[in-house]
Amino acid sequence: MSKKAVVLLSGGLDSATVLAIARSQGYEAYCLSLDYQQRHRAELDAAERVTQALGAVMHRTVKLDLSIFGGSALTDASIAVPEAPAEGIPVTYVPARNTIMLSLALAWAEVLDARDIFIGVNALDYSGYPDCRGEYVRAFQAMANLATKSAVEGRTISIHAPLIEMTKAQIVTQGTALGLDYGITVSCYQADAQGHACGVCDSCRLRRQGFIAAGLADPTRYASTAKTA
Amino acid sequence: MSKKAVVLLSGGLDSATVLAIARSQGYEAYCLSLDYQQRHRAELDAAERVTQALGAVMHRTVKLDLSIFGGSALTDASIAVPEAPAEGIPVTYVPARNTIMLSLALAWAEVLDARDIFIGVNALDYSGYPDCRGEYVRAFQAMANLATKSAVEGRTISIHAPLIEMTKAQIVTQGTALGLDYGITVSCYQADAQGHACGVCDSCRLRRQGFIAAGLADPTRYASTAKTA
Repeated sequence: MSKKAVVLLSGGLDSATVLAIARSQGYEAYCLSLDYQQRHRAELDAAERVTQALGAVMHRTVKLDLSIFGGSALTDASIAVPEAPAEGIPVTYVPARNTIMLSLALAWAEVLDARDIFIGVNALDYSGYPDCRGEYVRAFQAMANLATKSAVEGRTISIHAPLIEMTKAQIVTQGTALGLDYGITVSCYQADAQGHACGVCDSCRLRRQGFIAAGLADPTRYASTAKTA
Repeated sequence: MSKKAVVLLSGGLDSATVLAIARSQGYEAYCLSLDYQQRHRAELDAAERVTQALGAVMHRTVKLDLSIFGGSALTDASIAVPEAPAEGIPVTYVPARNTIMLSLALAWAEVLDARDIFIGVNALDYSGYPDCRGEYVRAFQAMANLATKSAVEGRTISIHAPLIEMTKAQIVTQGTALGLDYGITVSCYQADAQGHACGVCDSCRLRRQGFIAAGLADPTRYASTAKTA
């Protein structure tokens, strides 16, 4: 029997790997992306490429203008994307973003009667965002078990975070084994319109180190001006 | 010292009462409404009237098209609003709506450095929605305490649901005592463009019974064709 899953897909390396994992487990994928007026809009084009490469039943992009709240370098043009690691939670943190995205996934899963949601959060090689930790995902699950008509009627919806304890090297190794071409994904926080990466932001740095640690060629398309290209 | 609070405001009776309560407690109110392509869009005009009557520092309406998911009589024109009470959770349930709204409130509260969120959920005279129960609100709070940068840094954001254990009669009694004119609010699930109520949907029925039980005149503006007018 086919199993439906809602897969949160940003177009970056992690969520693309999660889609490859869900597909390898036999899930029919309903991919959900969020157009939140992010600075790196090229990731939305990447998400579309990834759904085509890996096969999704449906791909929907929800528009939600988080820039009206501001407060993040990813949605507020007046806050620069840092080009060196900082202490604490960086300014690229988007307030409550994963909570908002999981809430939308929960809504769609309930309508689809899907029992599974996949999200590419990762608590090892990550930027220190609070909503990427296992304890956060478990708390969201506990809340979701009380939030929906499905759950009240006995059909709980499970949140899967298969990358949560993996290193970036393990992630790219697994995705590569599943046939994923990371050249079509975009992780850079300030990618240009064609999806070329800057090479220096936190997201580029973590991604590049992952390929190096895995001993894999880095297929990222860097901008001609990128410092690590 | 002034205290900031994000107040979720639909434009209906409950959330207007919550805003009146928050204002009476000295909060500066940042009101948040959701334009989710709901059938009863007149409630958004009502929300604006309520913020003006009760005084809000700011009122923002976030657009998020939940009709792309469907699955509810409130967002899917092909599902009729019932005119008699049904068993179980009714078709006017919008999947994960309160989770989505609280998530957005959490995002805005974090950016504003507000420590309080108010929501008008009610578990007594309500429609049986799972995300209106106290246990749900407590689970959301537990999740929120792990989700944000604020919380990780020791500034938790509290979810207040002052109506949770109140009857509809108690709610309208309190709001009236606080000077709220319920004639400017719209609760009806199928209000016309001018905000006139049908008188027969679940929301109209609960509201009308509240005024009767409280011994208060019902200031609701019913449509000329409404069956209870």
